[in-house]
Amino acid sequence: MATKIGEQEMEDLARGAALLGTGGGGDPYVGKLMAQKAIRQHGPITLLAPHEVPDDALVIPTAAMGAPTVSIEKIPNGEESYRALRTLEQHLGKRAYATMPIECGGGNSTIPFVVAALAGIPVVDADGMGRAFPELQMETFHIYGIKGSPMVLCNERGDHCILHTLDNQTLERYARAVTVKMGATAHLAEYPMTGKQVKETAVPGTLTLAIRLGRAIREARSLKRNSIDAIIDVTANSIYGPAIVLFRGKVTEVERRITGGFVRGLARVEGYDDYLGQMLEVDFQNENLVARADGQVVATVPDLITFLDAEIGTPITTEGLKYGHRVVALGIPTPEIMRTPQALEVWGPRYFGYDLDYRALEEIHSEYYKRLF
Amino acid sequence: MATKIGEQEMEDLARGAALLGTGGGGDPYVGKLMAQKAIRQHGPITLLAPHEVPDDALVIPTAAMGAPTVSIEKIPNGEESYRALRTLEQHLGKRAYATMPIECGGGNSTIPFVVAALAGIPVVDADGMGRAFPELQMETFHIYGIKGSPMVLCNERGDHCILHTLDNQTLERYARAVTVKMGATAHLAEYPMTGKQVKETAVPGTLTLAIRLGRAIREARSLKRNSIDAIIDVTANSIYGPAIVLFRGKVTEVERRITGGFVRGLARVEGYDDYLGQMLEVDFQNENLVARADGQVVATVPDLITFLDAEIGTPITTEGLKYGHRVVALGIPTPEIMRTPQALEVWGPRYFGYDLDYRALEEIHSEYYKRLF
Repeated sequence: MATKIGEQEMEDLARGAALLGTGGGGDPYVGKLMAQKAIRQHGPITLLAPHEVPDDALVIPTAAMGAPTVSIEKIPNGEESYRALRTLEQHLGKRAYATMPIECGGGNSTIPFVVAALAGIPVVDADGMGRAFPELQMETFHIYGIKGSPMVLCNERGDHCILHTLDNQTLERYARAVTVKMGATAHLAEYPMTGKQVKETAVPGTLTLAIRLGRAIREARSLKRNSIDAIIDVTANSIYGPAIVLFRGKVTEVERRITGGFVRGLARVEGYDDYLGQMLEVDFQNENLVARADGQVVATVPDLITFLDAEIGTPITTEGLKYGHRVVALGIPTPEIMRTPQALEVWGPRYFGYDLDYRALEEIHSEYYKRLF
Repeated sequence: MATKIGEQEMEDLARGAALLGTGGGGDPYVGKLMAQKAIRQHGPITLLAPHEVPDDALVIPTAAMGAPTVSIEKIPNGEESYRALRTLEQHLGKRAYATMPIECGGGNSTIPFVVAALAGIPVVDADGMGRAFPELQMETFHIYGIKGSPMVLCNERGDHCILHTLDNQTLERYARAVTVKMGATAHLAEYPMTGKQVKETAVPGTLTLAIRLGRAIREARSLKRNSIDAIIDVTANSIYGPAIVLFRGKVTEVERRITGGFVRGLARVEGYDDYLGQMLEVDFQNENLVARADGQVVATVPDLITFLDAEIGTPITTEGLKYGHRVVALGIPTPEIMRTPQALEVWGPRYFGYDLDYRALEEIHSEYYKRLF
């Protein structure tokens, strides 16, 4: 049943999506403010379950892309992605019935609401990654056969680019090159598809899951409960699976560099729960990719690896990680649609250059952590 | 009066345009073969003087862009620029009345003829540079107020990109980034304009000048005449001005590297006419930029600097320069439309990073060379 998203839901959604964003997916604070402003101006926004979208309706996902490190300095004015949608509609000669996110993340889960408010259309409760990933072909849309192009890329000035490519890897390469020239952050509309294709390829229900997660963190805080337990409860009752505490400790080192339009780096966390290990290392490329506790892999893409502030239980993006931060590293198992052999080929650890087969988080956990007790 | 361009005219045009291309503008051999094949298949191509184009007709220039060093290895199949034209027409919702070159050069003066043959339209006898230049905003179209976008970039596979930018410098930056990802060579349609705008902004008559130059070189060779004298005669009777011999010698060094989608480098020529100097150095970025004889500047952009084979009098592109080559370095003064303050801001030596004011070739010559005698 269609629900209405108001300012409070947007607050929860931005926080929950930042958790699912595994460090990336854009800043939740800026995204939330933009969407809340749009709701104040245009009223609550309709959220449709995928099955509520007619099979032949045109759905156009909208998002920002680039290095999050840049996007928190170069704040969007809120209309860039709307212009991307309008430009793609004009190019296709057809209006969109709805928009939706391409990924979960504080920014990229909220931008479609800004677009929806400006365009007067609903948002579909689903996305193409079930988390955040750094590249455009890392989408269930791609994995299950949808073409990413025609795609529109916009900047804040009004320049834009319409890309048509034969395959989605090429789309990523061309779009990334233009994004770098746009200042390492750009706004897009891509993977135009039918309602039927959304139902067949998207990860369903991720926006309501984000709202539930955000609400659980908020309520836990006001009740002075442990928000980790609340997160475990919510994820256990979802298509994901119960979150697992990977590590607790203090951030002692963050290496961060912007190369090829991405932020890449490494965070080191010194443990203060001996039984979880003495040192956690997490590599990231916009999003957290692989976590090693004392040299042993404890979680890898596509499973989710997210840092939470140990005090207030809120997710920390890659840009927010700082020396001295007390953190909890959380792992969340991904749904089955994201673990098929086709999916692992696109976003498994080998794609990111690791000489490592994917092993399910809960499987690693039952071996590695159980031996610790 | 409209003329017809057959295989012989194309042979002459490719050679003459390579001379005007000042080392760049694409390979004359490949360009000639493509255009001659198109003429064999579709018949001679109509060449229109600018004044023969109706004021309200749509003219779409077509070309290749990238590092010529790559384009001689990755030979076009001949249809890429035609597809760029068709894609831009579709985007604009209007058919082109004619196409034309964006620059003079062995490749880029011939490609519009391939496009014209396939599309069944004429070519306008004019271009936007009066020579070849490495960047897209270095066009009289830009200098005299025409927007370069919407622009279409194609590769040989069928991928394409439609660029819309607020200014032509941004267009160059985005198009260059995509070209690099397309393999450092791409095909384009840009600066869509009216017949009136062609008349107001293009360098007129450069295709017939190229044919006259190519014919003069060919006939000189068959008559065992000095082709340099023939070139001087033709240029003296044009909007350019009499060519000037800058140097004679043997190539002793060529540095060539591909950076940022361009080929950049330096050629050194050891003199064997003592009176012209002992060593000539010519810098290039796709095209020859600045020539120094024994450390003293003897020619700079936008005046033309071209190497000719000393034996057979044919122009040598940047890629063709080799150790041991006996060459004549020729300077040709540019027409007035290319020397205005607005024009020098776009393609004068300072734009290319030289701490050097532009001085007209014939002025340098009257001072520098006259003192040699």
